[in-house]
Amino acid sequence: MPYVTVKMLEGRTEDQKRALVEKVTDAVSETTGAPTEKVVVFIEDMKKSDYGTNGKLYSDQ
Amino acid sequence: MPYVTVKMLEGRTEDQKRALVEKVTDAVSETTGAPTEKVVVFIEDMKKSDYGTNGKLYSDQ
Amino acid sequence: MPYVTVKMLEGRTEDQKRALVEKVTDAVSETTGAPTEKVVVFIEDMKKSDYGTNGKLYSDQ
Amino acid sequence: MPYVTVKMLEGRTEDQKRALVEKVTDAVSETTGAPTEKVVVFIEDMKKSDYGTNGKLYSDQ
Amino acid sequence: MPYVTVKMLEGRTEDQKRALVEKVTDAVSETTGAPTEKVVVFIEDMKKSDYGTNGKLYSDQ
Amino acid sequence: MPYVTVKMLEGRTEDQKRALVEKVTDAVSETTGAPTEKVVVFIEDMKKSDYGTNGKLYSDQ
Repeated sequence: MPYVTVKMLEGRTEDQKRALVEKVTDAVSETTGAPTEKVVVFIEDMKKSDYGTNGKLYSDQ
Repeated sequence: MPYVTVKMLEGRTEDQKRALVEKVTDAVSETTGAPTEKVVVFIEDMKKSDYGTNGKLYSDQ
Repeated sequence: MPYVTVKMLEGRTEDQKRALVEKVTDAVSETTGAPTEKVVVFIEDMKKSDYGTNGKLYSDQ
Repeated sequence: MPYVTVKMLEGRTEDQKRALVEKVTDAVSETTGAPTEKVVVFIEDMKKSDYGTNGKLYSDQ
Repeated sequence: MPYVTVKMLEGRTEDQKRALVEKVTDAVSETTGAPTEKVVVFIEDMKKSDYGTNGKLYSDQ
Repeated sequence: MPYVTVKMLEGRTEDQKRALVEKVTDAVSETTGAPTEKVVVFIEDMKKSDYGTNGKLYSDQ
């Protein structure tokens, strides 16, 4: 039942995403008690020109 | 005023999205009392490699 | 698999939410082809002091 | 610490996004008291076929 | 048409939120060209026990 | 830089949330290569009357 969204800069490989889904699901299951088959993970890739901190686009930093 | 987001696997046609927006708007309007012109619908397509359940990427299932 | 979020001003009754979930699920299932048991609906209530248009809080309009 | 997401139709230039991040960061910092280096801005582009109002896709309006 | 969400720690007053909505709407309108009456702002308050960085809840830092 | 949101039914204790933030941060850091101090976790509690599957509110199931 827990729904997890991971938003991060684009560029991670499919292998990294595969490991991310596996490890995050385990972490959520262990700490909340939800069975792993109830844990849903969404990944959202951000472009460097769609993300800014301190008033500056990441693509300009 | 209701804002509706529908997140689903990519691959639906524009005709399916057109019908989705029409029918979901009607359903929200009828049940909440908001006029249809106040209902906003956002569609978000997910890639199979950005979605996982039970610790596995959908693209591996 | 479609995940639907409905964000709206607080104040709807549980009966309205019950009808909303039922009708929106049907609308999404019919138009996307996803079976109803795969459709998930989240409702998010907004306070009038947490929502603004045209530069003004809704609680001031 | 404030996290700001701006969702809008695609088509803005990188210069417009650069200005958006700068001005929104200033506006949030001034009114909340958070230092600008703590303000994070995410931009999300929407396609016209993924957005609808009044039961109609924007690409059909 | 731009939809802006500002997520921040709870505790800001209604006056701060009022100013936030006004100033952010102006900033978005000026930089994107959208008229102010098309800009929508959502505010989301976070509890200190629902937010963490560096592996620690904010309420413990 | 990864921003993680965990949405789940209300009722977890602060100790469970503390463990969740710690373990999820480690899982994200190990698999993406981002340092733990760059990982941000948001927790969102859902009420049983604001969540539905298969056309039914969770509070009715």
